[in-house]
Amino acid sequence: MRMLVKISYHGGQFMGFQVQHHERTVQYEFERILKRMHQTFVRIHPSSRTDKGVHAIEQYFHFDTHLNIAPDRWMYAFNSALPKDIYVQSVEQIKDDFHCRYDCVGKKYRYKVYIDEAKHIFEHDTKVQQKKPVNIQEMKEAAKHFLGTHDFTSFCSQKTEVQNKIRTIYQSEVNETQDGFEFVVTGSGFLYNMVRVMVAYLILVGEEKRSGNEIHTLLEERDRKKIPHTAPAHGLYLEKIYLDKEELINEFGRNIEICNKNSSENV
Amino acid sequence: MRMLVKISYHGGQFMGFQVQHHERTVQYEFERILKRMHQTFVRIHPSSRTDKGVHAIEQYFHFDTHLNIAPDRWMYAFNSALPKDIYVQSVEQIKDDFHCRYDCVGKKYRYKVYIDEAKHIFEHDTKVQQKKPVNIQEMKEAAKHFLGTHDFTSFCSQKTEVQNKIRTIYQSEVNETQDGFEFVVTGSGFLYNMVRVMVAYLILVGEEKRSGNEIHTLLEERDRKKIPHTAPAHGLYLEKIYLDKEELINEFGRNIEICNKNSSENV
Repeated sequence: MRMLVKISYHGGQFMGFQVQHHERTVQYEFERILKRMHQTFVRIHPSSRTDKGVHAIEQYFHFDTHLNIAPDRWMYAFNSALPKDIYVQSVEQIKDDFHCRYDCVGKKYRYKVYIDEAKHIFEHDTKVQQKKPVNIQEMKEAAKHFLGTHDFTSFCSQKTEVQNKIRTIYQSEVNETQDGFEFVVTGSGFLYNMVRVMVAYLILVGEEKRSGNEIHTLLEERDRKKIPHTAPAHGLYLEKIYLDKEELINEFGRNIEICNKNSSENV
Repeated sequence: MRMLVKISYHGGQFMGFQVQHHERTVQYEFERILKRMHQTFVRIHPSSRTDKGVHAIEQYFHFDTHLNIAPDRWMYAFNSALPKDIYVQSVEQIKDDFHCRYDCVGKKYRYKVYIDEAKHIFEHDTKVQQKKPVNIQEMKEAAKHFLGTHDFTSFCSQKTEVQNKIRTIYQSEVNETQDGFEFVVTGSGFLYNMVRVMVAYLILVGEEKRSGNEIHTLLEERDRKKIPHTAPAHGLYLEKIYLDKEELINEFGRNIEICNKNSSENV
């Protein structure tokens, strides 16, 4: 049977989600436990492969098992054996043709920045420092230019391998916080480093070095070399995975264009 | 000339303060910078040698230099070269016979605990999890038994090498917080692991497995084997270093007995 697992993790001390040789990864921590329980290798399939340093408030993966263990007992078994920077929020049985990656219809990310000349050492791996003041109103206006369906070639890593770079953005907001600001973005899917390139550009807008009105032209130019900045990983949080179109419609209204099959990239 | 440096650090990714072979330590980070600036090795002398995982809100060290650099420029030089989990709050010139360790007349520590069956992954290295509920009123009463001058043999690591285990405690409080509780303790000095053994005992009192009234007897017995628990390092914060008796008197009143020369141990 196929099990769906909802997890969260602090990315600070992981080399990302995906297994790499001899590195500490989230995937490795789960497959290690599953191997011990099954006496054979069991693969897990996540909704998103987050990069080194990126956090997850909500992330899903599925795996197949022949073990007859109740969902609650699975949750207990995982949480007893996991390190203290990963937590399993829930486990449920799901239909055998469900796939965490292909059935993901959207993702929400949050990017956290504090503004201070002094380093906040207790947030050294959970928020990004911005030393200079920023014009938040300009950033709020600029963020709106990402809304809708665009080719995001200009706003992803040059290492992006996927062919189709068209994604739909349902939410793109800059919010002032007590100590700085946050960028919240929800979309059908995201290209490699896409959120971090968007944030880097918005910060340049906040510093009044670039203009929000340029975003439209940059998107049309489809040239990644125009935006050489990528914001650091440790401010980024995968906040929500949408496994159901109804969830997106409930949050963003029935008029949104739902794009599918675009959510297969890591960020 | 002798320079006094006030710093803070997140201890989560340090193997403690003191230099050890090939390990990442706070002392190494500073001596690395000083060596580059002086073209020769320069030793730093801290007020306290915190253990692996222990944090510092306030910590001091001093060093001697022939370089004629203004205090503000020293601060800038350090902060530009330090990693993001250490911060220099201030640098000042101090008289040549001042010594951070021998002139330290007191220290304040704080120990942070959250109460929840679920792990708080974003506090995995800054607070300690307590799964079971505790009786905070019992802990508050118990903490008072540590006040005053006692031989703390029963409440330190068996590895403690110092002969004189008499210390004076000026403040010993358990405070309820939004998500759990904190233990705040100020004393003339602390033996190796002393705060963490005190906290471990207070938690047993909170769980109603031990009684606060036993503390008096335990102190008198001077037998470390009676309290086999030591609370984890990552909940512990060095919060304040008292380099001046007046500071202690201002905070705790003129009637306190000031003990000197007891503050040479790490915790």
